[in-house]
Amino acid sequence: MTAIKQAAIIGGGVIGAGWISRLIENGIDVSVYDPAADAAEKVEAVLGNSRYAYSKLISGPRCIEGSVQFCDSVSAAVASAELIVESVPERLDIKQTVYAEIEASAATNALIASSTSGIMPSDLQAKMKHPERLLVAHPFNPVYLLPLVELVGGKRTSMATIERARKIYHSLGMHPLHVKKEIEAFIADRLLEAVWRESLWLVKDGIATTQDVDDAVRFGFGLRYAQMGVFDTYRVAGGEAGMRHFMAQFGPCLKWPWTKLTDVPEFTEELVDLIAGQSDEQSGHMSIREMERIRDDNLIAILHGLKGNDWGAGKTLAQYEHQLLQAANDPA
Amino acid sequence: MTAIKQAAIIGGGVIGAGWISRLIENGIDVSVYDPAADAAEKVEAVLGNSRYAYSKLISGPRCIEGSVQFCDSVSAAVASAELIVESVPERLDIKQTVYAEIEASAATNALIASSTSGIMPSDLQAKMKHPERLLVAHPFNPVYLLPLVELVGGKRTSMATIERARKIYHSLGMHPLHVKKEIEAFIADRLLEAVWRESLWLVKDGIATTQDVDDAVRFGFGLRYAQMGVFDTYRVAGGEAGMRHFMAQFGPCLKWPWTKLTDVPEFTEELVDLIAGQSDEQSGHMSIREMERIRDDNLIAILHGLKGNDWGAGKTLAQYEHQLLQAANDPA
Repeated sequence: MTAIKQAAIIGGGVIGAGWISRLIENGIDVSVYDPAADAAEKVEAVLGNSRYAYSKLISGPRCIEGSVQFCDSVSAAVASAELIVESVPERLDIKQTVYAEIEASAATNALIASSTSGIMPSDLQAKMKHPERLLVAHPFNPVYLLPLVELVGGKRTSMATIERARKIYHSLGMHPLHVKKEIEAFIADRLLEAVWRESLWLVKDGIATTQDVDDAVRFGFGLRYAQMGVFDTYRVAGGEAGMRHFMAQFGPCLKWPWTKLTDVPEFTEELVDLIAGQSDEQSGHMSIREMERIRDDNLIAILHGLKGNDWGAGKTLAQYEHQLLQAANDPA
Repeated sequence: MTAIKQAAIIGGGVIGAGWISRLIENGIDVSVYDPAADAAEKVEAVLGNSRYAYSKLISGPRCIEGSVQFCDSVSAAVASAELIVESVPERLDIKQTVYAEIEASAATNALIASSTSGIMPSDLQAKMKHPERLLVAHPFNPVYLLPLVELVGGKRTSMATIERARKIYHSLGMHPLHVKKEIEAFIADRLLEAVWRESLWLVKDGIATTQDVDDAVRFGFGLRYAQMGVFDTYRVAGGEAGMRHFMAQFGPCLKWPWTKLTDVPEFTEELVDLIAGQSDEQSGHMSIREMERIRDDNLIAILHGLKGNDWGAGKTLAQYEHQLLQAANDPA
């Protein structure tokens, strides 16, 4: 028994399509609304990736795939959905219009989850009739493979909504992280934006090419971050003397570059050209589809290889996701 | 035939000991100078980790391990070394004093490589007699497993030094990244410091605990960064429309948080207490040794699993490192 049986996706871009993949791979039927003429084609391309990925990720028998139905309106898509995922462009006015359409047709107890990566849920729910059932559930690309989903409630979101959402995302094999206070960009994207800002400086100042930055990440700290976060990594670096010692040692030493590195680069046409040109040189010989396949193969290898102390001795991350899923779906 | 046969390590902390591991695992003899009474004991603990790691990393026959000899002085340690690695504390005056001692006894054609993670090589070499052979070769912890090493020359470093260093680090199975212009913190640590600064804000403001931040990293973008860097990740996210499209879409959206996120948190006792306390709660049930073992097992799984488009079709990162090593060590 899965936590839900029927979901709706409003907006079938990369993130919406990723949600469709994760849902149907877990046996949930999905209705989709996206006004773009090529929406079905684009969704199908992502589903192709995710079917391939799950066939490699899961060695045992897989779920019977849920159905995907494209609808002509928001109203038709949400009519019988228990979970409604909004993945439309990042504009508050567009999102609020979509919520009005959703509320006109959805069951009042349906959960409404925005995929926004930055807008505050209190702003999203400002004009809603039943704001208590709206939350942000912010996933990471590719949604069908990465376990993280940030759950953020607004001022008027009920705790019952957060708890229900947590259960649903567990039942999709995900790792829901409840962000306790509303802030712009939540947790992960604040970190990512800091990296992005510094990366732009490095390229703009001619210190590094896009390839250099990418190599510095994937041959270095990226390998650490895949398996241990910021604080645990430094805890280990501090050695037996502990975290306090590490901070005492490392804190002052970091002071001077901090000040320098907090300027914001101007987002000029010239900078866009520089980055886009270098990126073409770096990876223009591959199609996006090829790059996605490389990425997914590697993520699968990592999910199969990683073992976490905190998710059951000897379990890999792939097995842990299955364990979450099974636990959530056990008839209680 | 390896690129070098004899190296010296000045400073046997976590980084120095990591260098010893990587060198002796590649058959190079190492002499060590560290004035601390427990230096040999601390180095031995790291060697224990690296021997275990290499036995799992390499399935075929391994190199005959190089020897480790502790010396009573810098002078004795460097006398017959072709590569001299300086891994002493991050203070310019201490490092300059060590270089003076090194220059008094080392061969004039020995390479001197600083492990500093932030000090400019031009400052390091300011008082040297033969400054042309000094460079920064900045590794990442654990040095015996992570392939990245940033090579940075100062104003008076010769290109021959950079080229020779590149060959040596290749011959250690590493990925040398030449940072073309000198800047504080080089490439990777600028990115890492940005992440660290944001992480401190998140905990200080009560948005997240250290555990939340770590989970946001390792269940989300950390898995991406292990196998694809910042720019390639966004290139894929932009889809067929390309990098220019991604930047046009994503650039303005990021503008507002940038401004907010560039403040620098004050490094108070209170903040140190908060972080250290949360870190204890998160991981205090494990010893540092246990955490290192978990980290290394996971890194080995990743190195065995990852395949890169740019390092030979079908090759894993572990195989790629071996390929670098073999190519560098082939009699040319």
